[in-house]
Amino acid sequence: MGSTTSRRWVLAERPAGIPDGNTFKLEEAPLPALEDGQVRVRVTHFSLDPGMRPALSRDTYVGATPIGSLITSAGVGVVEESRSDRLKEGDFVSGGFGWQSALVARDKHCVKHDPRLFNGNVTPTAAIGILGIPGMTSWFGLKDIGQLAEGETVLISSASGPVGATAGQLARLMGAGRVVGIAGSKAKCDWLTAEAGFDACLNYREADDLEAAMREACDGGADIYFDNVGGEMLDAAINVLKPGGRIAVSGQLSEYNRAEPHGIRNTLPFITQRLTMRGFVVLDFVREFGTAAIQMVEWINDGKLIYREEIIDGIENAPDAYAGLFKGDSFGRRLIKVS
Amino acid sequence: MGSTTSRRWVLAERPAGIPDGNTFKLEEAPLPALEDGQVRVRVTHFSLDPGMRPALSRDTYVGATPIGSLITSAGVGVVEESRSDRLKEGDFVSGGFGWQSALVARDKHCVKHDPRLFNGNVTPTAAIGILGIPGMTSWFGLKDIGQLAEGETVLISSASGPVGATAGQLARLMGAGRVVGIAGSKAKCDWLTAEAGFDACLNYREADDLEAAMREACDGGADIYFDNVGGEMLDAAINVLKPGGRIAVSGQLSEYNRAEPHGIRNTLPFITQRLTMRGFVVLDFVREFGTAAIQMVEWINDGKLIYREEIIDGIENAPDAYAGLFKGDSFGRRLIKVS
Repeated sequence: MGSTTSRRWVLAERPAGIPDGNTFKLEEAPLPALEDGQVRVRVTHFSLDPGMRPALSRDTYVGATPIGSLITSAGVGVVEESRSDRLKEGDFVSGGFGWQSALVARDKHCVKHDPRLFNGNVTPTAAIGILGIPGMTSWFGLKDIGQLAEGETVLISSASGPVGATAGQLARLMGAGRVVGIAGSKAKCDWLTAEAGFDACLNYREADDLEAAMREACDGGADIYFDNVGGEMLDAAINVLKPGGRIAVSGQLSEYNRAEPHGIRNTLPFITQRLTMRGFVVLDFVREFGTAAIQMVEWINDGKLIYREEIIDGIENAPDAYAGLFKGDSFGRRLIKVS
Repeated sequence: MGSTTSRRWVLAERPAGIPDGNTFKLEEAPLPALEDGQVRVRVTHFSLDPGMRPALSRDTYVGATPIGSLITSAGVGVVEESRSDRLKEGDFVSGGFGWQSALVARDKHCVKHDPRLFNGNVTPTAAIGILGIPGMTSWFGLKDIGQLAEGETVLISSASGPVGATAGQLARLMGAGRVVGIAGSKAKCDWLTAEAGFDACLNYREADDLEAAMREACDGGADIYFDNVGGEMLDAAINVLKPGGRIAVSGQLSEYNRAEPHGIRNTLPFITQRLTMRGFVVLDFVREFGTAAIQMVEWINDGKLIYREEIIDGIENAPDAYAGLFKGDSFGRRLIKVS
């Protein structure tokens, strides 16, 4: 019969700063009976995403998460019961399932995956990782927003995270001349240069002068800054960009928990260095996801594109694991294994 | 014989904040005898440009103005003596002549103008105004940087200034659906809407809530923010941009006199609203200036494109007139009439 109830994390109070023990509340609720066109999904894994942080505190383009509501995230799971023509019991699906152990959903809100793709080097959780929103953010952020050209130097913040690490490898595979990461530990930097093919990595916690360290790591200057962080790091990167440089604004991790935003202070180089800063919402490119995924699966299976996952066991650990994302203690795509 | 000496303003000390009586010093120096390829120019008018303010205080892409050096600006004048094959006595020329009454220059540093173009509605000073750097900044800022499309709404700061007023009129002539200015007095706003064809103008000195006032004046939102000002006004404009909105960074007037830059605080909408902010140096488009000028002269003579000049008599008045640019007391292109 499978899951007849769902354990789920809801928003208990709006956090100021990094979410803590008071932010979330774990509930258990029975699942409704299925209607036509619905399926019941047992969630095996869900993701912990810094990008949903703003909606916990305030209104955003996806609205504010209401108090008492399920925390949003991507998930993968198995169909346990179906009243859908399109999905059957045992199907492997992903979707915006939230921080919960099971759910009843409309079939059209589930993406059905071919299990044969998730073989070899490709784990099932890649569906919501390198082949999901984070990986697509890397792909379209570099190609369409950053307008990467052959031989260019790409500087990437939060480089060991799921977006950054993929962006750096894709940059290389798409023809960049030099790929430089910024990460928060020696272990992360070592992995990026030894395993993920980055040319250089800068440990920002050990840099006295971040701008000088960036410039040196970039061999003079960068053409693209792939920005997952914002804040003071972005201000420094602006000074390292070459004339005509582009900033692809993928995330603003350092801004999400601040009461007063830092933003950027450094606007004059936009004029003098002819800089472009451009943000994006990756879902705007959804029609092209398939093509990107096929190429990425090929590269993953050829060993040219790797990714790290940090799978934390137990739904009860989600809040602590989430808060850790903002303390720099994660290394790779952080996921909760539910069942 | 004409001018054998030049009266010239040099930098006396680096200003902190708005330049004052201690910033500049007036000198008189004899002009050297001409060498081959040189001309002696009597300057009739020179411009007062907020854009050169940063170089008075610090290093910029054009370098810092050295203490004791001539203050840079555009000028128009007449060739009084020539040892050039290309220029002859009486020719009407413009160039980066600086704040001075006469100079000896290489002929290639002078642009020779056809005096027949400067007839009808086109004044000689248009050569360094609407047909010079300010006008070209409007043209290429809108077209190439802002990527103006038919029917779009354009919001323009410092709209009664030489760049802003031209940008608004060009926006209309290039097919914008709605053109909205931001200026600092009722008189300026009245001129923009009554004379220059702006659809609306917002007096920022009378707006309690700048963002709300911008949104209302824009009928909901803007597609392009043509930014001459930066600072808090830019932060507000970011919130008024529609999805896919562009910020053309033409100038950052409000930043030039600050000890600590404001920059922008408001970076999250770059992601959620898919915004692009792009700066530029208009000289990058110099090969296309001629084509733009021909079109603008036609529109000026047809009465479709107008411009205001504030001509202040006497070289001794340059410092006060310059400081006034940062106090919002100018209205149109401010020029010094030297002779």
